[in-house]
Amino acid sequence: MAQTTPNHTQTVSGWAAHDSSGKITPYVFKRRENGVNDVTIEVLYCGMCHTDLHHVRNDWGITMYPVVPGHEITGIITKVGSNVTNFKVGDKVGVGCLAATCLKCEFCKDSQENYCDQVQFTYNGIFWDGSITYGGYSNMLVADHRYVVRVPDSLPMDAAAPLLCAGITVYCPMKDENLLDSAGEGKKVGIVGLGGLGHVAVKFAKAFGHHVTIISTSPSKEKEARERLGVDDFVLSTNKEQMQARKRSLDFILDTVAAKHSLGPILELLKVRGTLSIVGAPDKPMDLPSFPLIFGKRVVKGSMIGSIEETQEMMDLCGKHNITCDIEMVSTNNINEALDRLAKNDVKYRFVIDIASKSSNL
Amino acid sequence: MAQTTPNHTQTVSGWAAHDSSGKITPYVFKRRENGVNDVTIEVLYCGMCHTDLHHVRNDWGITMYPVVPGHEITGIITKVGSNVTNFKVGDKVGVGCLAATCLKCEFCKDSQENYCDQVQFTYNGIFWDGSITYGGYSNMLVADHRYVVRVPDSLPMDAAAPLLCAGITVYCPMKDENLLDSAGEGKKVGIVGLGGLGHVAVKFAKAFGHHVTIISTSPSKEKEARERLGVDDFVLSTNKEQMQARKRSLDFILDTVAAKHSLGPILELLKVRGTLSIVGAPDKPMDLPSFPLIFGKRVVKGSMIGSIEETQEMMDLCGKHNITCDIEMVSTNNINEALDRLAKNDVKYRFVIDIASKSSNL
Repeated sequence: MAQTTPNHTQTVSGWAAHDSSGKITPYVFKRRENGVNDVTIEVLYCGMCHTDLHHVRNDWGITMYPVVPGHEITGIITKVGSNVTNFKVGDKVGVGCLAATCLKCEFCKDSQENYCDQVQFTYNGIFWDGSITYGGYSNMLVADHRYVVRVPDSLPMDAAAPLLCAGITVYCPMKDENLLDSAGEGKKVGIVGLGGLGHVAVKFAKAFGHHVTIISTSPSKEKEARERLGVDDFVLSTNKEQMQARKRSLDFILDTVAAKHSLGPILELLKVRGTLSIVGAPDKPMDLPSFPLIFGKRVVKGSMIGSIEETQEMMDLCGKHNITCDIEMVSTNNINEALDRLAKNDVKYRFVIDIASKSSNL
Repeated sequence: MAQTTPNHTQTVSGWAAHDSSGKITPYVFKRRENGVNDVTIEVLYCGMCHTDLHHVRNDWGITMYPVVPGHEITGIITKVGSNVTNFKVGDKVGVGCLAATCLKCEFCKDSQENYCDQVQFTYNGIFWDGSITYGGYSNMLVADHRYVVRVPDSLPMDAAAPLLCAGITVYCPMKDENLLDSAGEGKKVGIVGLGGLGHVAVKFAKAFGHHVTIISTSPSKEKEARERLGVDDFVLSTNKEQMQARKRSLDFILDTVAAKHSLGPILELLKVRGTLSIVGAPDKPMDLPSFPLIFGKRVVKGSMIGSIEETQEMMDLCGKHNITCDIEMVSTNNINEALDRLAKNDVKYRFVIDIASKSSNL
């Protein structure tokens, strides 16, 4: 569709998967002209999210090929439309998961547009003009300015990129749980999975003054979690004694795991009325046993990324606390290798593609 | 154990299951003498809860045979201990699920003793003296007065009995959701399953001024639900079109179903940030798909019965609104037949055993 939309006149070099093998190859395509509400962005970096993997392999059965993944994008504005007053050429900006929403519903009006039921994403979505959206695995992006945020000057553009999805995804549930400021009374926070999302969650939770427990299936992660990330406790979820010893001990748990798993043993770690926030998106339903839910009056909540207002708020807070992601840089020639490693969770903690090959200059 | 505990001197006639066949036969056993904090109750009626079925058949693998079920008990006080000042001989009272808690923890001190981690239930529990607890399928009960509530004079003792479990189980989640008074702005409330719990939930929700939708697998229940119980809408959960038409329409859903089921289609009916409260206890984990949870920022909560304070509060409210259960009376000779029908959900809507055979006199 994009190719035949009349005003899609700008040629872009990108990287796309063309079938469920998920293999990424260079792909030249068109983007729309910069409209009155748009900004054009020279893409510098793009993080690699687990969602990219699900899309290129069509795990969810919703992929429209060719798919140009990428929704953790940082770059520099090169054009602004005539209606755009809050950005100018040269600004350092980020684009996350949102490409379009209805702008009219209660959620759009209340700065919660990520829950608009017309939401369209940065890739594999359908934009207002009917074109399929292509993401940040590409050297240039045209985005409506209402879905663009500013990257604070103090943050490096490469390590800030994953904040646009991984960061906001873990920030919002913490905000909803009133964890942004412990006011000297830190809560006991558990984080399930120490990967792209989990390691940012650790940084937020520690910056906000909480006691952090990692719940993981990987004993190999304990040393680094404790020594470098400063977590206070580490529980091997496969070890029944360790899990038993921590029953009813945590106020809040953030579950970042993207694979099917049972929520029962995790729920048991929560205090009565504790909250388990789910932000991973396994392609199969999770097992929810009723007993630990009912006996502890516990709560399981979903949360999906965040609004643009919240994303800007998080970016500014990251600037203030100097929070970025721990990344491994990937050249555009090595995207497939990185996706394969991502499938095995073999990354500390997020791959970022050096789209413009300018990493040494910034 | 009960038989050998020295002060268990009172002989009681009851009905017990002796193995996982679940067959109930008359059973004579001993109860403790009436202690200083106890009241002795002549049992008049006892409701038959789905939990009774799970216990007599050992579905959860925790049954200590012989098991005397029953935790929806109404009766008349015949003795009071010397420390008991709030009850007197002749009082109409009820006993629900709770037999003992630690009395010292934060939950016990905060009138939330149903979440005490030392909680012991009215049957198949271990009382403070080490004896196994025996429930209300018996003609006499000794209960600590702290786990006894008053039955309002306006309520019939037979139809009030199931309020002690079915009633309080559905009352608490509604209270937690601030649904006790719509203040003229009724919410859209869904109730999954129109059985013992569901039909009481309908009565509460209607009494409190809400719009009620039944979500059911049984088309045969629609006519009565609408015409006699006054529900506003009825959705067949097996009908995709009916479910689709009601997406994002409900503020709150109470799920009373005691069999394994997927929560996905139910979650889709909730508005963004809506709450699904789980009060049934399927013996297998429920399926929780992440997408409807995450995309709607929805909440799944557990709730287990209620505290004694809440149970009294509910009883008083039932007295005020004249809310009772719709019951089918069962003689003590027909308990097995009733359990078999209960297993098939063939009851409108709760069996109550006429323990004292006094139904015509009260």
